[in-house]
Amino acid sequence: MNYEMMKYVLMSICKIEGLLLLIPVFVSVIYKEYQIAGKMAIVAIAFALIGMVFTRKKPRKIDIFAKDGLIIVGITWIIFSIIGAIPFYVTGSIPSFIDAFFETVSGFTTTGSTILTDIESLSKGILFWRAFTHWIGGMGVLVFVMAIIPLAGRNSMSIMKAEVPGPTVDKLVPKAKQTAKLLYIIYIGLTGLEVVLLMIGKMPLYDSVVHAFATAGTGGFSIKSASVGYYQSAYIDWVVTIFMVLFGINFNLFYLAILNKFNRIARSEELRVYLAIIVVSTLLISINVYSMYNSISDSLRYSAFQVASIITTTGFMNTDFNLWPQFSKSILLILMIVGACAGSTGGGVKVSRIIIIAKHMRIELKKIIHPRSVSNVKVDGKIVENNVIRSVSGYIMIYFMLILFSFLLISINGFDFETSITSVITCINNVGPGLGSLVGPIGSFSMFSDFSKIVLSIDMLLGRLEIFPILILFSPRIYKRRF
Amino acid sequence: MNYEMMKYVLMSICKIEGLLLLIPVFVSVIYKEYQIAGKMAIVAIAFALIGMVFTRKKPRKIDIFAKDGLIIVGITWIIFSIIGAIPFYVTGSIPSFIDAFFETVSGFTTTGSTILTDIESLSKGILFWRAFTHWIGGMGVLVFVMAIIPLAGRNSMSIMKAEVPGPTVDKLVPKAKQTAKLLYIIYIGLTGLEVVLLMIGKMPLYDSVVHAFATAGTGGFSIKSASVGYYQSAYIDWVVTIFMVLFGINFNLFYLAILNKFNRIARSEELRVYLAIIVVSTLLISINVYSMYNSISDSLRYSAFQVASIITTTGFMNTDFNLWPQFSKSILLILMIVGACAGSTGGGVKVSRIIIIAKHMRIELKKIIHPRSVSNVKVDGKIVENNVIRSVSGYIMIYFMLILFSFLLISINGFDFETSITSVITCINNVGPGLGSLVGPIGSFSMFSDFSKIVLSIDMLLGRLEIFPILILFSPRIYKRRF
Repeated sequence: MNYEMMKYVLMSICKIEGLLLLIPVFVSVIYKEYQIAGKMAIVAIAFALIGMVFTRKKPRKIDIFAKDGLIIVGITWIIFSIIGAIPFYVTGSIPSFIDAFFETVSGFTTTGSTILTDIESLSKGILFWRAFTHWIGGMGVLVFVMAIIPLAGRNSMSIMKAEVPGPTVDKLVPKAKQTAKLLYIIYIGLTGLEVVLLMIGKMPLYDSVVHAFATAGTGGFSIKSASVGYYQSAYIDWVVTIFMVLFGINFNLFYLAILNKFNRIARSEELRVYLAIIVVSTLLISINVYSMYNSISDSLRYSAFQVASIITTTGFMNTDFNLWPQFSKSILLILMIVGACAGSTGGGVKVSRIIIIAKHMRIELKKIIHPRSVSNVKVDGKIVENNVIRSVSGYIMIYFMLILFSFLLISINGFDFETSITSVITCINNVGPGLGSLVGPIGSFSMFSDFSKIVLSIDMLLGRLEIFPILILFSPRIYKRRF
Repeated sequence: MNYEMMKYVLMSICKIEGLLLLIPVFVSVIYKEYQIAGKMAIVAIAFALIGMVFTRKKPRKIDIFAKDGLIIVGITWIIFSIIGAIPFYVTGSIPSFIDAFFETVSGFTTTGSTILTDIESLSKGILFWRAFTHWIGGMGVLVFVMAIIPLAGRNSMSIMKAEVPGPTVDKLVPKAKQTAKLLYIIYIGLTGLEVVLLMIGKMPLYDSVVHAFATAGTGGFSIKSASVGYYQSAYIDWVVTIFMVLFGINFNLFYLAILNKFNRIARSEELRVYLAIIVVSTLLISINVYSMYNSISDSLRYSAFQVASIITTTGFMNTDFNLWPQFSKSILLILMIVGACAGSTGGGVKVSRIIIIAKHMRIELKKIIHPRSVSNVKVDGKIVENNVIRSVSGYIMIYFMLILFSFLLISINGFDFETSITSVITCINNVGPGLGSLVGPIGSFSMFSDFSKIVLSIDMLLGRLEIFPILILFSPRIYKRRF
């Protein structure tokens, strides 16, 4: 374990987060929330200074092992969330620290589950920070760190591999640092575009920025209890729908679009399957809910919005889908598990993994009918190697086991079955709302015990970091070696 | 495809089922239910005669391919269930044929889910047939057929492989026919012992036989709405608990016990894990429900009974566990999925598969920490080959996908989430009761649409035959070749 490197990364995190916190301080000042601004400013400056002091000396050895990369990512996200929770706590916006931690983890992991029951009562500065955590978390804290701090160790790619969702990270450009910068430019560009389009729909600037942050990170924190539904605008609903779908796409494809390589984009099976799932689910749900709205355009608007919101694991709502018939809710629940494309800001199992597994299963079935048949799993025309299939199926199995185990722990609360299981599913897939009246779209996670909130926070981190960086912290093996 | 062989097997099925039906006819006569007896006798004799006529000539070619074995097993179970449903229908006991089919599939697959709402109103002969289907299904229709009809083709082992639950079938004795006979002797012996022990507990003979049938098959059909709870006897509860646990054990172990090879039994990891799960679950639940009974012995009695009933996928109840706290219900739900040991009459994923997957996941995690480490999955001291691991993980993945897909289809009914998902889980694992007030232990599946009943019937068959013999019937591939 390269402790020096670890210390350096953690201190960089302090610095970065301190500096980032200055932005909501600035927002607070604009809205004349001076008390909030003052308290946040102290936190911001304190961490920025500590970070700056301890990162003056660069580590001599910057190489790290893959294992260390995982551990650093896991610990970084936890520390980052603890620091991020402090503004909520010291301003009295969230009186319990566990609650503040849950809310911040939910923010950085781009989940969007909230323990707040009266969102509108919070100050603009705090609500800005809350949505901003989505935006920061969306691209991954460490990608950010690597893009900013002048550091590119031999194994920094292994950190990014743990950080960026999906089974594979293509090296867009040889160096991790440049990759990170490129992804960030796309990310900022799309966010800006959404802000402009929302403002054209007469959404105020502040609201547009906050909702664009939450869309970009596929997070889902809104500044209104009724979420995007508050604005009662079909135009806004459709803009958000389209941007949610966009932020659920593998960012490599945007890069290809910039390079004008549209034929390579068209060849992407993941994109085709992702869009097909969205279209089919939207049609099924709009037929199922048609009688509730008695209008084709409204049925399509609400169902397209919710399908996009759930499959991309954003978690916005423009209507209380908990009132929909069970068939529609069941589709949404399955979409929570499917999740967005690999290499996007979304969570879930990821469409590419579903494709690999589906093809693998088809071949296994074919083998039973024709034992001597030889076939390979192919994605985008390329053969998927056996060890990839094995690790994908291993991943999904661990994922299901973690869901069942967390469900058992959450059940100790004694809430009903639907609440217990869907709160776990929505958290581990970084969606936001669950099903049922308690944790559904208009509900809140406030009634859970502190123990449950910690379990769900771990679930959110497990989902966001694709299990291993967090699971490794629970392995007694790594502590035995004087970790 | 060996059509001649297929026809021969199906006609043997008719003959066997006709002859088996004579037993409930006999029971009806004893209880002076002459009208019921008459109607059942006509069905019984008709099928027995048809079967006898068409099985007089043995097929010239008795060899079959593995694929054909799967297809034969799948079709046989469906035909067997259709024939078995006729007595319920013609006697007017179950007025809808779909309902009668559901009830019979539930019987033969040893599930125990019922569409009946007033069990006590049925005649003794019909209730006997209903429980008898569990006993027949328990050991597998084809094992039975092979034990009786003088026929042992080269690939009859492949039929049994599809029939007997669990990832592997050890050849106890070289010939399938003898294996079947041996398993049957153990089965009959244990059933007889349970009848005697229940009668010692002052349960009437008829009740004892019927409940022993339902225990042996790990089915769960009772002749009382309150199930075993009707008898209000701690002694009876414990006898049934012990026998449920016994029938959830791999039958090979009983064979080893007969041979006095107890050291080999002690080496069985599956047995140890199975018993450990039962003990731990029982303790957790009894602590959780203690406040409901205020007595250690009662808490243990009810929780041990329900744990044994659910993990072995029997589905009896001695108390309405739907009223238990969610934590206890969540444990039961997970036990439904775990299921009993391979090579037992129980359903579920099977403990041996869980062991293989758990060990596989541990090694995959170890590989992430130490990429160069080389380890093999070992069960009972033997290395589990990679293709076994692959097929087990493929199986579990297909299993989860089928659960989600069925859940979606069942959701069309519009019942609540808990009802929709637990009815699928209980059916595909051949347990019996689900959770919630509708399909819970005191509920019934009668309110489902015919479409849902057919979906759930297919789920029961998928679970009982370990997916492939039924799934293969949905593959367009096999029909293309002039099937």
